[in-house]
Amino acid sequence: MNFNYYIPTKILFGPGKLKELTKENLPGKKALIVISSGNSMKKYGYLDRLTGILKSKNINYVIFDKVLPNPIKSHVMEAAEIAKRENCDFVIGLGGGSSIDSAKAIAVMAKNSGDYWDYVNGGTGRGLPVKNGVLPIVAITTTAGTGTEADPWMVITKEDTNEKIGFGNESTFPVLSVVDPELMLSIPKHLTAYQGFDALFHATEGYIANIATPISDAYALKSIELISKYLPECVKNGNNIEARTYVALANTLSGFVESTSSCTSEHSMEHALSAYHPNLPHGAGLIMLSESYYTFFASKIPEKFITMAKAMGVDMDFIDIDKRPMAFVKALVKLQKDCDVDNLKMSDYGINQEEIPHLAENAHKTMGGLFELDPYKLSLEETVNIIKKAYK
Amino acid sequence: MNFNYYIPTKILFGPGKLKELTKENLPGKKALIVISSGNSMKKYGYLDRLTGILKSKNINYVIFDKVLPNPIKSHVMEAAEIAKRENCDFVIGLGGGSSIDSAKAIAVMAKNSGDYWDYVNGGTGRGLPVKNGVLPIVAITTTAGTGTEADPWMVITKEDTNEKIGFGNESTFPVLSVVDPELMLSIPKHLTAYQGFDALFHATEGYIANIATPISDAYALKSIELISKYLPECVKNGNNIEARTYVALANTLSGFVESTSSCTSEHSMEHALSAYHPNLPHGAGLIMLSESYYTFFASKIPEKFITMAKAMGVDMDFIDIDKRPMAFVKALVKLQKDCDVDNLKMSDYGINQEEIPHLAENAHKTMGGLFELDPYKLSLEETVNIIKKAYK
Repeated sequence: MNFNYYIPTKILFGPGKLKELTKENLPGKKALIVISSGNSMKKYGYLDRLTGILKSKNINYVIFDKVLPNPIKSHVMEAAEIAKRENCDFVIGLGGGSSIDSAKAIAVMAKNSGDYWDYVNGGTGRGLPVKNGVLPIVAITTTAGTGTEADPWMVITKEDTNEKIGFGNESTFPVLSVVDPELMLSIPKHLTAYQGFDALFHATEGYIANIATPISDAYALKSIELISKYLPECVKNGNNIEARTYVALANTLSGFVESTSSCTSEHSMEHALSAYHPNLPHGAGLIMLSESYYTFFASKIPEKFITMAKAMGVDMDFIDIDKRPMAFVKALVKLQKDCDVDNLKMSDYGINQEEIPHLAENAHKTMGGLFELDPYKLSLEETVNIIKKAYK
Repeated sequence: MNFNYYIPTKILFGPGKLKELTKENLPGKKALIVISSGNSMKKYGYLDRLTGILKSKNINYVIFDKVLPNPIKSHVMEAAEIAKRENCDFVIGLGGGSSIDSAKAIAVMAKNSGDYWDYVNGGTGRGLPVKNGVLPIVAITTTAGTGTEADPWMVITKEDTNEKIGFGNESTFPVLSVVDPELMLSIPKHLTAYQGFDALFHATEGYIANIATPISDAYALKSIELISKYLPECVKNGNNIEARTYVALANTLSGFVESTSSCTSEHSMEHALSAYHPNLPHGAGLIMLSESYYTFFASKIPEKFITMAKAMGVDMDFIDIDKRPMAFVKALVKLQKDCDVDNLKMSDYGINQEEIPHLAENAHKTMGGLFELDPYKLSLEETVNIIKKAYK
C-alpha cells in the first residue's frame, strides 16, 4: 500500500451554504464567471445571487456564458483570452460539470501560453508541463454528477478530432467549492438520474480500479450506499431537500474517489460515444454501457462486487455464493429501473452498430490510460464486445 | 447536514515513502527541524536520513532537539526565537505527536508576536487571532497515535498553570506529511499499544461527537475497523510491516476524523490527568478512562455504539438486542486485553482518588469546549463519577 493523498479544496457543504460565501476570503479581486450557454443560471437567480455576493465583497467580475453541455476547446481559448484582457485574477465556475470543468481549463490557459491541447495528456495532446501555475478556481456546483468540485479533473472536447479527454494536475483542484443542494432542486428528473448515475460510476469504477486504496474505498462505498438509498427519491420528488442533500454528498464523495483512485475504462468508452454523438448525455451513455461492463468484470474480482452489492443494501444471506458477485449488477439494473432510466438506447442517439469497432478504438486511443487501471486488461476485441452487448 | 470540509495536507503514505521526499517541492530554503529530547531519531538514523534529503536539495537546516513527551510552552517560545534568528522559512516536525505538535506551535510563534498563550483558545488563553499566518509545516511521523500529520491541532502544556490545551486553525495543517510505516517498526510494545488506542479514541470520539458528518463517520469506522484488526498483531510483532501499515493508515484516518469532526470530553479528562501527572502517557490515560466513559454513553446513543461494535468485527446476530450497544464496550475491553493494556492503573502513576474532583474541574475549565460536543452534556458531577469509576 503506497499512495499520495491530496485534496486541498475547501468545501462548503449543505443546504443554504451559498450564502456563506460572503464570509469566505475569495482568492482575488476580479473574477471571470463561467456559466453555460443555457438559461438556467439566470432563470433560477443563481447568477444574480453570485454577482450580489461579489458586489458585497467589492469584487469585480466578467461573465463568460457560452459553455456547451460537452464543453469545447475553442470556448476555453476564447474565455482565457477574455480573462487575460480583463485582468481577471480568479475564475468561478457556476453550474454543472461543463461550467466548472471549463473554468478549470480557462484557469490553466489564462496563465499559460500556446494551446490548451499542448498540455493535455492522451490522444493528440502534447502533454507539456503547465509551467506558470493556474488562476485560483472557485466551483459552485448546481448538479450532483461529476464530482468536479472535489477533484482536479476537467473534460474538454477537441472539436476537429472528436477527442474528449480528461486532464488535470495538483494545481487544478478548486481552492474553494460550494455544494448547496438548494441549488439542485430545479434539476429535471431525467438529468437528476443521468447525473446521479455518473456519480455512482465514479464511485464504482474508483472502487474496482487497481489503484484503489482503503481511503478511496471508504469514500466509494459510502457514495454507493447513499446513491442507492436516495437517488430514486430524488428522481421521483426533486423537491425533497434531504434526498438532494444525500445525493449531493455522494457526488462530492465520488469526487474524492476520483482524487484518490480513478475512473476506469467505462469512462473511456463513454467519452468515445459522446465525442462522436454530442447529443448523448454523459450519464446516459454510462448507464447504457454499465450492465454489460460490470457483468464482464463480476467474475474477475468477485469479492469487490459482493462488497459493492452490500453497499447497495443487498442482503447476501439468501443468495447462493456463486451468484453473489452478479447481485451487484442486478441491484444496479434495479436502481436504473427505479430511476426510470432502464430503457435508454444507443440507437436513439444515432449510434450505429457498425461504428462500434471504431468507437472502441477511439476509447483506447484517446483515453487508453484508464484501461491500464481496470482490474483486468481489456483487449480491443473485448472492448468491442462489451459495447456490442450494451447496444440496443 | 451543514459543514465545511478542509484538509489541505498532501500526504505521502506507505512503506519506504520517506525516500520520496527527495522528489517533492519543499516549502522553503532553510528548515527548523524539531525533534524530541530523546535519542531515538538519532539512534535509528531517521534524523540523518532527513538531513541527507535536505542536503541533496540544497536546503539548510537548524535542529531543535528539546521537545518533551508532553511538550511545553517554554520550548515552543525558545524554538520560535531560534527560527526567527536563523531566518528559517519552514518547520519540519520529525517524530511522534509531541515533535509535530511543537513544530506547529513554533510555526505560529515564528511569525507572530507576543506569547503562544495569547493565541490559545480555552483556559487562560487569550484567543487572539493569528494575524500573520504561520511558517509552512512539514510533518514526518514516526508513530501511529495522534493523527497530527493529518489535522491542524497541536497540544501544548503551560507549565505554571498545568493547562494542557489543544489549539489550531485552518493555517496550521501541515502542507506536507510523510507517513512511512518503516519508521514505526522500532516503537516498543507498550507505546505501540498506547498510541494505537489514542488513534482509536480519536475515531470513536469523533464518531459519537454531535458534529459528526457522514464523511467523518466513513473515516472513523474504517479507522476503528483497521485498529481492531491489526493493533494486537502490531503490539505482539512490531516488525510486521503489514500490520504497522494498516495501523498507520488508521491513525491518519483518525487525523482526518479530527479535521472533520472532533474529540469529545474523554480527551478533556485525559488532558487533566496528564497535565498534573506528566509521567502518564496520553494514550495510557485514555485507556484507563475508556471503559467507564463509553459505558456511560452506551445507553445515550445505542445505534452508534452498535455500528462501532460492528466495525470492530462483532457479530450482532447472537447478541440480545438490549445488550448490543454494550457489545462495543466489551469489544473495547477485549482489545485492551489483546494488546496487554487491560491492567493500567491511575494509582500506578501517582493519581489519588481525592484529587478526582479537582481533575474533573480542570477538564471542564481548560477544555470545556469538548464537553459541548459530547452526545449528551455531562455535568461536573457526572464527570467526577466517570473518572471515579475508572479509578484503579
